[in-house]
Amino acid sequence: MSEQLLSPDRFFSPDPGQRRVARELYEGIAGLPIVSPHGHVDPTLLADQDATFGTPADLFIIPDHYVFRMLYSQGVPLEALGIPRRDGGPVETDHRKIWQTFAEHFYLFRGTPSGAWLAHELYEIFGIKQKLNGATAQATYDELAAKLATPEYRPRALFERFKIEVLCTTDGAADSLEYHKKIRESGWGGVVRPTFRPDAVTNLALPAWKANLDALSAVVGREITTAKALITALEERRAFFKQMGATSTDSGVETPYTEAMSPADAEAIFARALAGVATAEDARRFTGYMAYEMARMSVEDGLVMQFHSGCYRNHNPLVFAKFGADKGHDIPVETEWVRNLKPITDAFGNNPNFTMILFTMDETGYSREMAPLAGHYPALKLGPPWWFQDSLNGMARYFDQVMETAGLYNTTGFIDDTRAFVSIPARHDVWRRASANWLAGLVVRGLIDESDAAEMAPDMANGLCRRTFKLG
Amino acid sequence: MSEQLLSPDRFFSPDPGQRRVARELYEGIAGLPIVSPHGHVDPTLLADQDATFGTPADLFIIPDHYVFRMLYSQGVPLEALGIPRRDGGPVETDHRKIWQTFAEHFYLFRGTPSGAWLAHELYEIFGIKQKLNGATAQATYDELAAKLATPEYRPRALFERFKIEVLCTTDGAADSLEYHKKIRESGWGGVVRPTFRPDAVTNLALPAWKANLDALSAVVGREITTAKALITALEERRAFFKQMGATSTDSGVETPYTEAMSPADAEAIFARALAGVATAEDARRFTGYMAYEMARMSVEDGLVMQFHSGCYRNHNPLVFAKFGADKGHDIPVETEWVRNLKPITDAFGNNPNFTMILFTMDETGYSREMAPLAGHYPALKLGPPWWFQDSLNGMARYFDQVMETAGLYNTTGFIDDTRAFVSIPARHDVWRRASANWLAGLVVRGLIDESDAAEMAPDMANGLCRRTFKLG
Amino acid sequence: MSEQLLSPDRFFSPDPGQRRVARELYEGIAGLPIVSPHGHVDPTLLADQDATFGTPADLFIIPDHYVFRMLYSQGVPLEALGIPRRDGGPVETDHRKIWQTFAEHFYLFRGTPSGAWLAHELYEIFGIKQKLNGATAQATYDELAAKLATPEYRPRALFERFKIEVLCTTDGAADSLEYHKKIRESGWGGVVRPTFRPDAVTNLALPAWKANLDALSAVVGREITTAKALITALEERRAFFKQMGATSTDSGVETPYTEAMSPADAEAIFARALAGVATAEDARRFTGYMAYEMARMSVEDGLVMQFHSGCYRNHNPLVFAKFGADKGHDIPVETEWVRNLKPITDAFGNNPNFTMILFTMDETGYSREMAPLAGHYPALKLGPPWWFQDSLNGMARYFDQVMETAGLYNTTGFIDDTRAFVSIPARHDVWRRASANWLAGLVVRGLIDESDAAEMAPDMANGLCRRTFKLG
Repeated sequence: MSEQLLSPDRFFSPDPGQRRVARELYEGIAGLPIVSPHGHVDPTLLADQDATFGTPADLFIIPDHYVFRMLYSQGVPLEALGIPRRDGGPVETDHRKIWQTFAEHFYLFRGTPSGAWLAHELYEIFGIKQKLNGATAQATYDELAAKLATPEYRPRALFERFKIEVLCTTDGAADSLEYHKKIRESGWGGVVRPTFRPDAVTNLALPAWKANLDALSAVVGREITTAKALITALEERRAFFKQMGATSTDSGVETPYTEAMSPADAEAIFARALAGVATAEDARRFTGYMAYEMARMSVEDGLVMQFHSGCYRNHNPLVFAKFGADKGHDIPVETEWVRNLKPITDAFGNNPNFTMILFTMDETGYSREMAPLAGHYPALKLGPPWWFQDSLNGMARYFDQVMETAGLYNTTGFIDDTRAFVSIPARHDVWRRASANWLAGLVVRGLIDESDAAEMAPDMANGLCRRTFKLG
Repeated sequence: MSEQLLSPDRFFSPDPGQRRVARELYEGIAGLPIVSPHGHVDPTLLADQDATFGTPADLFIIPDHYVFRMLYSQGVPLEALGIPRRDGGPVETDHRKIWQTFAEHFYLFRGTPSGAWLAHELYEIFGIKQKLNGATAQATYDELAAKLATPEYRPRALFERFKIEVLCTTDGAADSLEYHKKIRESGWGGVVRPTFRPDAVTNLALPAWKANLDALSAVVGREITTAKALITALEERRAFFKQMGATSTDSGVETPYTEAMSPADAEAIFARALAGVATAEDARRFTGYMAYEMARMSVEDGLVMQFHSGCYRNHNPLVFAKFGADKGHDIPVETEWVRNLKPITDAFGNNPNFTMILFTMDETGYSREMAPLAGHYPALKLGPPWWFQDSLNGMARYFDQVMETAGLYNTTGFIDDTRAFVSIPARHDVWRRASANWLAGLVVRGLIDESDAAEMAPDMANGLCRRTFKLG
Repeated sequence: MSEQLLSPDRFFSPDPGQRRVARELYEGIAGLPIVSPHGHVDPTLLADQDATFGTPADLFIIPDHYVFRMLYSQGVPLEALGIPRRDGGPVETDHRKIWQTFAEHFYLFRGTPSGAWLAHELYEIFGIKQKLNGATAQATYDELAAKLATPEYRPRALFERFKIEVLCTTDGAADSLEYHKKIRESGWGGVVRPTFRPDAVTNLALPAWKANLDALSAVVGREITTAKALITALEERRAFFKQMGATSTDSGVETPYTEAMSPADAEAIFARALAGVATAEDARRFTGYMAYEMARMSVEDGLVMQFHSGCYRNHNPLVFAKFGADKGHDIPVETEWVRNLKPITDAFGNNPNFTMILFTMDETGYSREMAPLAGHYPALKLGPPWWFQDSLNGMARYFDQVMETAGLYNTTGFIDDTRAFVSIPARHDVWRRASANWLAGLVVRGLIDESDAAEMAPDMANGLCRRTFKLG
């Protein structure tokens, strides 16, 4: 019956010829180790060998904004799904009830990537044998809860079962990385690396910017009162992260505007920010300047620079006020790369020591700007489809619009970027199937031959990623 | 021979496996009643039981700018197609001659949606047995004219033959709805409802704005001299439309800019408009304020708000001067939703009493902005591909780019938006075939199973639409 | 073995039904003469009957920025590929070594259009029997060099073997067209026509603008000191080009902004330009005015106006300083047509004497702006996918997004725009296969019948192009 819940040939073209080639390519890569160079898994899960995932609602629903936003869009209050309120006000605490609500709305995920991942998690990872819906909700809950209580379903056990070769977390500039230390010192063989993310102190527009800066001051042991001092602090923290195993940094910005700012301008803006009088334009320029400086530091210390652009955060003030950030109300916006990125490409685009990976949710840039840029500059690589575009169709559009111009070898392979640890193998499986299917399409159309495809498939599965992120 | 003119498996994937599933799903929905919640059919056609469609040229060519713009683009003067001039100057009046010109250029529609609809109308609805071209033009004219003279081809008879469950027209704020009254009072069983469209008085930039306002003043029985009075008048008219059966409103704008304006600003702009000195920026802001107020009213009276954005009207001054508006020279422009719509989503996006349907011809917003917005806000739903995008490929792109992120249940199903009454079943048939084919693609790729598909298909055919527009 | 290197059914859908129809349509058009109305082939190649292509590196690598940019993006210095430096500094001169580097990186072209063209050139035109890679590099070089030394592989011989009916070059306004004269006077039967390209003197922002203007002054025999004089000079040169066989002009601009400027404004800007104090905004406006004037001249002299828009030239200052323009660092940017083109469409869009062909690399305009514009204005036609979009997927997206709205007959068929003479048949072959496959897709989906397809295929292969460019 599990075979009916998850077709072994899922996501392949229905054409028998293409499907045969796709299946063969997929079989060659399905079992390769997972390289996961960027995501939002909480390292505390792996720091303690006895950590557990909690209830099925704790695992599948409450932390995953990909999931609860869909129920919210159909009128289910976030309180009913147990999403914690900022004011500590009452939300549903009966996780069986939350699960029932979820199951009754599971049909909303038909044809969505969340639906595909959840199916993989339930039917493959947890071995559930019946389709989830309102009628099967409680029996499913029982079975999941029972399995979650066993050692086989603890985070470290799943890390090993998933064959994760390396997992990189995302960590603020002021983070002590104590859980990374704990993991290292525990003697456990799993490789978990940090990633340096400075947004909290480089984006002056954040309400918590000053508090974030104070936290960074505390961790470097001196008050940061100038832009220059901030840059020095970032350099120190990058060195620490690198020593703790980091091979990359990550920046998330609304617009990819960058600027090689004069020290005088930078200090003037920083002073206004400290005085609480920085404008939105100040923040935009300073964020762009920090991106430029991050690129400059990458040239010097060799950390790979990830650059996620084009997300309007916290669009819904009511949801933000009640539940905070990362609650499913971030919306992509248009992203211009050619002019915005020029200060960085002018200065560092030809530098063999520099690798910058571009991510977008604005697909209009794929064929127009991103693929031509990556197909020219030695420093630029294109990350895989991100967030809303991390989907079966999103991948097909990416392959279609990027590969002809950029070439496969100017892309990075898959990066899961997940918050949901158990979705990692599901997400990589979608990518591997989509990749096998894309390559099979090239083969049956006579664009590449099967020996080319056999070399490209493992590169797409983990080789490109391992090399780009220097994790080899 | 009719089978050769219209393949029974048309629009389905050529893959035998997918085609089998698509055909089966289609057979289950092909005969379902048509729910047509928005379009531009003239209610006078249905108010008089003896009304007719006139000649074949009257029916197929003269009122349909989708059709004559294609011949115009290839050098056929609009005069030669009988399109009336604003100055009453001479145009072709021999409808046989117009038909001949049309038939000789019928090859221009190869592979276009107009071509597919016209084929359905000619070969299916009118039972024509030969392909239309210059040689068959006159014989076809004869046959069409003969049928149009019979009672079976009168508007009401076709309404019934088409199995139209409900048809909503589009009517100006000052409209008396007398033909709707006539239809209701005639005892005829067809359900025809009005839709409230206030553009004529909310868009200050229209040359006829003041005249339109005077007409509204006349119908409410008092002179409208302030923005506040205009809003009150709109509220009154909405109440009247609702009482006359309306369940929705419709706004058509060039940009979806919206604004929660202060009364002082609104009155200042309104005063400038009355004085004939309003600027383009005044008009843009006021239109955005009116959209905001329309949303507020919808929260209060429960009318569903349709919002069509992104059309540059009357691009060709020569054609406009000679023939006027709606003559095939409206061109889509870029449409930004995330920032423009925020005043409305901030105020009403979470309100369970509010439904706002977004329409665009700028497909770049599908995956970037619209699907993420609809996949979060309870109030937002996505309308189907509109106008130029209401086509087989347009639907495939919409399914591809919208459904994974928004989910099917945040979309509205099909809305035909037609001016050409006899194209209604053709348009719905394209959608139903495209939907069946899309669902079949999900089935054969293992994304959903056949039982899911069997539930989704009738929702796509009319269920989602009936529920969204409260026509159930 | 050649069959393995180049599948006879390449680029067709794997679906057996569609493939059968596609193959049949393709066979009907594969051998039709090539009409090449626009490209960058150097006429000197054809002016001398003994001209040769030089070494394999001279032919395939050094002049083709489509090729060397891909190796550059992966860290291969342009010097190692023999690309000449502006300062005459040292670059690799051993063409066998250059070829070896190229062959070792040939895998980078997997799945790219350059890869498909190179495969066609190597395996079909030059009859190479082994796959190119590092191991086969030198043997392949030997074989290519030997063939290039034979008369059969001289430019004129290949021109005839390729069945080129007409080839149009691109030539500056000040060009003497002496090589075109030579070709005409040589008695050789090949038809080679010039195309008038005024960019060098209409774009004030070019560093060499004044020098270019001086060259034009020299060729018209009087100093050009006013905008009016420039216009008169352009008119004279157009007349000369027309007399030399030109049927079209070409403009390449970053933005399609156009303006019907007052003479006073035009002269003021021109005076500032001569004084070396024109601003970027001056240049933008003047370029837009020159486009408007070029359209006006086309109405008068009947030359077809090609308009290539949306390319940010010379993005990489380091590569530009060292190697100059056209070195693989031109990047597409967003292109707005609806408002920018309005001065031209207002004045000339309905004129039966005017044909303007639009080209873009910004595909977002395809369905939103370009197809609706071409589907209305008699003067506007859409060129085929251009540059980065001149690829198998690029064509599929173009067919998908353009044809339903514009209709096939408002497009121009294929234009190769190549700099690489031997790639001409490869590029046309991709288009013909893609066209046959697209038409076959319409047939098997029941949108057109086989007799329609049989008429459309040769129009796509060369008929539309011949008629649009008045080359019939």
